[in-house]
Amino acid sequence: MTEPPRAVFPVRDASAGPADLTLTPAGEPPRLRADAARNRKRLLEVAAELAAERGAANVTMEAVAAAAEVGKGTVFRRFGDRGGLMLSLLDHIEQQIQAAFLSGPPPLGPDAPPLERLRAFGPAVIRHEHAHRDLYMAAHREQSRRYNPSYQVRLTHLTLLLRQVGAPGDVELTGHTLQGYLDTVLVEYLLTSRGMPVERLDAGWHDLVDRLGTPR
Amino acid sequence: MTEPPRAVFPVRDASAGPADLTLTPAGEPPRLRADAARNRKRLLEVAAELAAERGAANVTMEAVAAAAEVGKGTVFRRFGDRGGLMLSLLDHIEQQIQAAFLSGPPPLGPDAPPLERLRAFGPAVIRHEHAHRDLYMAAHREQSRRYNPSYQVRLTHLTLLLRQVGAPGDVELTGHTLQGYLDTVLVEYLLTSRGMPVERLDAGWHDLVDRLGTPR
Repeated sequence: MTEPPRAVFPVRDASAGPADLTLTPAGEPPRLRADAARNRKRLLEVAAELAAERGAANVTMEAVAAAAEVGKGTVFRRFGDRGGLMLSLLDHIEQQIQAAFLSGPPPLGPDAPPLERLRAFGPAVIRHEHAHRDLYMAAHREQSRRYNPSYQVRLTHLTLLLRQVGAPGDVELTGHTLQGYLDTVLVEYLLTSRGMPVERLDAGWHDLVDRLGTPR
Repeated sequence: MTEPPRAVFPVRDASAGPADLTLTPAGEPPRLRADAARNRKRLLEVAAELAAERGAANVTMEAVAAAAEVGKGTVFRRFGDRGGLMLSLLDHIEQQIQAAFLSGPPPLGPDAPPLERLRAFGPAVIRHEHAHRDLYMAAHREQSRRYNPSYQVRLTHLTLLLRQVGAPGDVELTGHTLQGYLDTVLVEYLLTSRGMPVERLDAGWHDLVDRLGTPR
């Protein structure tokens, strides 16, 4: 989701809804940008809270505007429509787990040895996606988005760690296999429909990583 | 897809469309059943041919009726609607691969040792689903059908073979991992979008089975 193009010195367009003077103080482009980014982030945090409380299906543009105490037009200008809001929200949530495994503290982040990072990756992703399951499940319903940039970031991360631990064989395919184990829909099926405890999934992940990650 | 309930001595219902005397000769229930099953099978074979030639999206009730040289009403009575026809067709196609791995010749079928059967399963499924990819891809678009009876049949088969080869660890989860590698959408992504040769996927499968199937 890219920001809609915005004029540096915006001309008021009556069709765009009520003016949002906080976000677009004409003539101050640098502050405007910083403010806009901050405000966008705040709207996403509000939306994430609403999604956690009520479920993603109940997060409307109106509800976000009311909870953030801004005009409805502000939310529409930021995200275009509800689909845009949901994509931005998923992106925002996904960035949290990305930050954790790319630059967070050990055992997920770069200060731990690669095998420990690999072992920590599965349980972290399972818990993260389960906490935001309605958002991830909704995203997976759009099959075209399955091999999206988030999937590729995770794949690159996993194949890098696999190379670091000296994994044998075709590490790209092994990366896909590991991602398959963490597939949102599979994990929800196992946890919810099959009633498996999450610790069983953790143990299965550790075994999988140990078997696929280390030379025979 | 179950057959719609049918009276043993059917009373002609004008709303059901033109009479199909070949399929429902009143008063001969045994022959009627056998004929009906045979005709249903023939309609599915015609539909499968049409799907292979034109793509599943272009298989209409009318096209099947024309190609099978029966009345359109016959096709509607057999399958209810186009969704019913597609489900029956997928079921018919899936039964071919099920027959191959449950009771077919080696190395897939029961006369081969279990590790050979496991190794043969991946390449066979990859080729089978790729040959019928638009049907399988369409089925996967309906997420609710992902852990359907066909998935369970394959899972039972894989976990049985894994137990037979003495696979360590959580064989049920290993079965899901193996199925994840063969996921229709993943395989099509790797073959089509990533341009991988199918032999690379075969080799990855063999490596995966060897690593997950045998004690360390």
